[in-house]
Amino acid sequence: MRGRDTLTDIVGVKSFSESFFFIVTGVMPDARQTVCFDACLNILMDHGLTPGAMVARIVEDSVPEDMQVAIAAGLLTVANRHVGTMAGAGRLLAEAMQSGEAPETWAARTAARFRDRKRRVPGFGHPHYSPEDPRATRLFEVAMGAGCEGRAIALLKTLGAEVDKTLGRHLTLNVSGAMAAILTEIGFPVEAMRGVAVVGRAAGLVAHIYEEKQDGLTRSLLEMADREFTPGADGEGQPT
Amino acid sequence: MRGRDTLTDIVGVKSFSESFFFIVTGVMPDARQTVCFDACLNILMDHGLTPGAMVARIVEDSVPEDMQVAIAAGLLTVANRHVGTMAGAGRLLAEAMQSGEAPETWAARTAARFRDRKRRVPGFGHPHYSPEDPRATRLFEVAMGAGCEGRAIALLKTLGAEVDKTLGRHLTLNVSGAMAAILTEIGFPVEAMRGVAVVGRAAGLVAHIYEEKQDGLTRSLLEMADREFTPGADGEGQPT
Amino acid sequence: MRGRDTLTDIVGVKSFSESFFFIVTGVMPDARQTVCFDACLNILMDHGLTPGAMVARIVEDSVPEDMQVAIAAGLLTVANRHVGTMAGAGRLLAEAMQSGEAPETWAARTAARFRDRKRRVPGFGHPHYSPEDPRATRLFEVAMGAGCEGRAIALLKTLGAEVDKTLGRHLTLNVSGAMAAILTEIGFPVEAMRGVAVVGRAAGLVAHIYEEKQDGLTRSLLEMADREFTPGADGEGQPT
Amino acid sequence: MRGRDTLTDIVGVKSFSESFFFIVTGVMPDARQTVCFDACLNILMDHGLTPGAMVARIVEDSVPEDMQVAIAAGLLTVANRHVGTMAGAGRLLAEAMQSGEAPETWAARTAARFRDRKRRVPGFGHPHYSPEDPRATRLFEVAMGAGCEGRAIALLKTLGAEVDKTLGRHLTLNVSGAMAAILTEIGFPVEAMRGVAVVGRAAGLVAHIYEEKQDGLTRSLLEMADREFTPGADGEGQPT
Repeated sequence: MRGRDTLTDIVGVKSFSESFFFIVTGVMPDARQTVCFDACLNILMDHGLTPGAMVARIVEDSVPEDMQVAIAAGLLTVANRHVGTMAGAGRLLAEAMQSGEAPETWAARTAARFRDRKRRVPGFGHPHYSPEDPRATRLFEVAMGAGCEGRAIALLKTLGAEVDKTLGRHLTLNVSGAMAAILTEIGFPVEAMRGVAVVGRAAGLVAHIYEEKQDGLTRSLLEMADREFTPGADGEGQPT
Repeated sequence: MRGRDTLTDIVGVKSFSESFFFIVTGVMPDARQTVCFDACLNILMDHGLTPGAMVARIVEDSVPEDMQVAIAAGLLTVANRHVGTMAGAGRLLAEAMQSGEAPETWAARTAARFRDRKRRVPGFGHPHYSPEDPRATRLFEVAMGAGCEGRAIALLKTLGAEVDKTLGRHLTLNVSGAMAAILTEIGFPVEAMRGVAVVGRAAGLVAHIYEEKQDGLTRSLLEMADREFTPGADGEGQPT
Repeated sequence: MRGRDTLTDIVGVKSFSESFFFIVTGVMPDARQTVCFDACLNILMDHGLTPGAMVARIVEDSVPEDMQVAIAAGLLTVANRHVGTMAGAGRLLAEAMQSGEAPETWAARTAARFRDRKRRVPGFGHPHYSPEDPRATRLFEVAMGAGCEGRAIALLKTLGAEVDKTLGRHLTLNVSGAMAAILTEIGFPVEAMRGVAVVGRAAGLVAHIYEEKQDGLTRSLLEMADREFTPGADGEGQPT
Repeated sequence: MRGRDTLTDIVGVKSFSESFFFIVTGVMPDARQTVCFDACLNILMDHGLTPGAMVARIVEDSVPEDMQVAIAAGLLTVANRHVGTMAGAGRLLAEAMQSGEAPETWAARTAARFRDRKRRVPGFGHPHYSPEDPRATRLFEVAMGAGCEGRAIALLKTLGAEVDKTLGRHLTLNVSGAMAAILTEIGFPVEAMRGVAVVGRAAGLVAHIYEEKQDGLTRSLLEMADREFTPGADGEGQPT
């Protein structure tokens, strides 16, 4: 694996998170980076009955012998509407860091640009959490505790202040924004950020699918859906 | 396409069903085969809110710009539990036709073999339809009308009679069994039979997804599921 | 199905293409529309060893018992880079038809807009075909033969002329653009257009997968890839 | 998460592996279990240009903006032919442990049963590695070092000895068998074992996809495949 002997240097020596970080970046993370990376992987692991979890459970009910099929189907929902804005926020931060502009200048310019285009600033806004997304707050706390808080997190917070000023109302800095900042902080590349969400979610889906094998939630759900939503259901049933 | 010029010999000249049959088998179907093939493709096109339709609708809600993702996810449910027994029945029929045994002998032997192994005979049994699966009945009617009824259909019906005798109770000859017999009749290979179900369903999923873009069934469904099934839901919401 | 009795009005009566058009639009197509719809479905059915075909073949080699898995994986490549521009072209045509503008005015304005944004006009350009994409040419020929050539096709050709004028060089009107125009002509909704590509491709993938079961192309391909691209391959092999 | 507060008890406190184990089993693993679980997750993370890696890379080339699609496609290959025998081996071990039989009795009986049915014993055999699969050897070493070696590992080794005796030749105890034994040892349920392979592989696929964004292996591969395998390639090209 990337120039190291997998069997002697990785297996039995490194944690999954360390190996994952290493196989993507080529750099073995230090303890500080590992704490932050683990926090990001864990924060998206479970979110109750998300669309992806429902998809995985329904597919599991149809294909009980092949868990990878249900996981793959569930992962297909990890798109822009849900966790996709992470990479968008990561790209903004990368631009800011390369531009060399003063943070406030960059933030004001960026906030204005999104307002003018009437587009949402990636990493900000949440339908339920305000003024703070507790997951973002916790991630920042962990990063600070690990000694990781640095330039990217500061930039994102500055951007948040300018977004509020520009719009005249408060937008929550959400968990996707926080993850983007922390992953930037520890040197994880923007282009692979969605992979962190995907792997974290994959673990959560394994739990959902295993639970489905026991509690059979899907059957109740399908029956309920059938009852509620099938107009003029005629008992046609499914093909055997 | 298989030795023919696609642009001059297929496009504008052949129907989709004819081309599909041809690209798989290398034989251009005659009118008789085409009627049967169309009937098989159509019979699985829509079955209301099947698991696959629900999966496709939920994924569509997450990934509205990429219909192929929702279709692919929905198709992953087209497995053994739902339409998968078609190939099993097709294999039985192929064995029977190659064996050269008298139909009754083969059927009695096969019924006994499945009973002894306590396994279900593919193509028989249905949770709702009895004594007949109206879809199977209709497919046989179409095949007979087209002049396709022949040896495979007769074999399957003989097998059904022996299954009933062996078990001492009636098992419905279901739509999967009927499709297997008819596709065998028209020379469509067993190994590609599931593809007929998949293509038929893909068309049905396009309709579900297009409808979802308008009626937004998924949102109601997700809210309902959340209300009914999330123990101690704490309003965590989804990540943005 | 959409208010009709599937067993008596669809199965054995309508072709797959007619049923597919009907289940999506709610309108049973006439002979004219059916010819055009079949042509669009067939044109994308096979294109040799496309990325999707390779994906489907590799997955088939790993999961030989579940063809729907290989088909689903292959369909995931039917995205913007390949056939995705169809819906983009369809949306342009829908705007043009609703705007009530004179075709030349709309076309000139649209061509200029894309040039100014340095973005490619959907439906135009092809790496190999110039000045014409023979598939587009054939589709238009079929549409004209069926008596379907109308406003949408004329608009797209006008747009092509203006694109050439604006850029000062010729861009090929490609097959995606032609399909968008013809599907618009026959009343198939823009939002479901990608579904036509997906269903056509699904049929083609069934043929690839069935062929793979016989000729085992994937094994040669994997060995070749291993030989050519694995730096320092150490014979680790795959887990069993 | 399973009765614990995710933000205070998991994020920033537990590693990804600990959380993954916990969310599936409901039991927080101790240090000993965590070492073994990490080793299993890491061992399948990377295996060079596996079929799944090729699938993910090809899909990435078509859908560069949505990494989850390429990951999902790649994961669909994690089926029986590759890592699927893990659960089979796990089920054998679970039966042995519940049966209360003497290990040698159970092993001899089981080896004979598979020989009589002419079926492969899950967890044994490898096309390249003999007499030992170095990955299995390393996993057992890690388990022993962590103090995890116990009854399940002993049972599997006993089974291996009886398999060799029964067949009259040596079959390698492979990595899937070793993982099944170690996961059984640490209390990870058989029904969720494939999930460990899937999550490990998902991390490896992120690395492949990220690399693909840089080195564009797929393009060379597709060109090579086109050159080598397309009989009578006529330059039709792909649809735009």
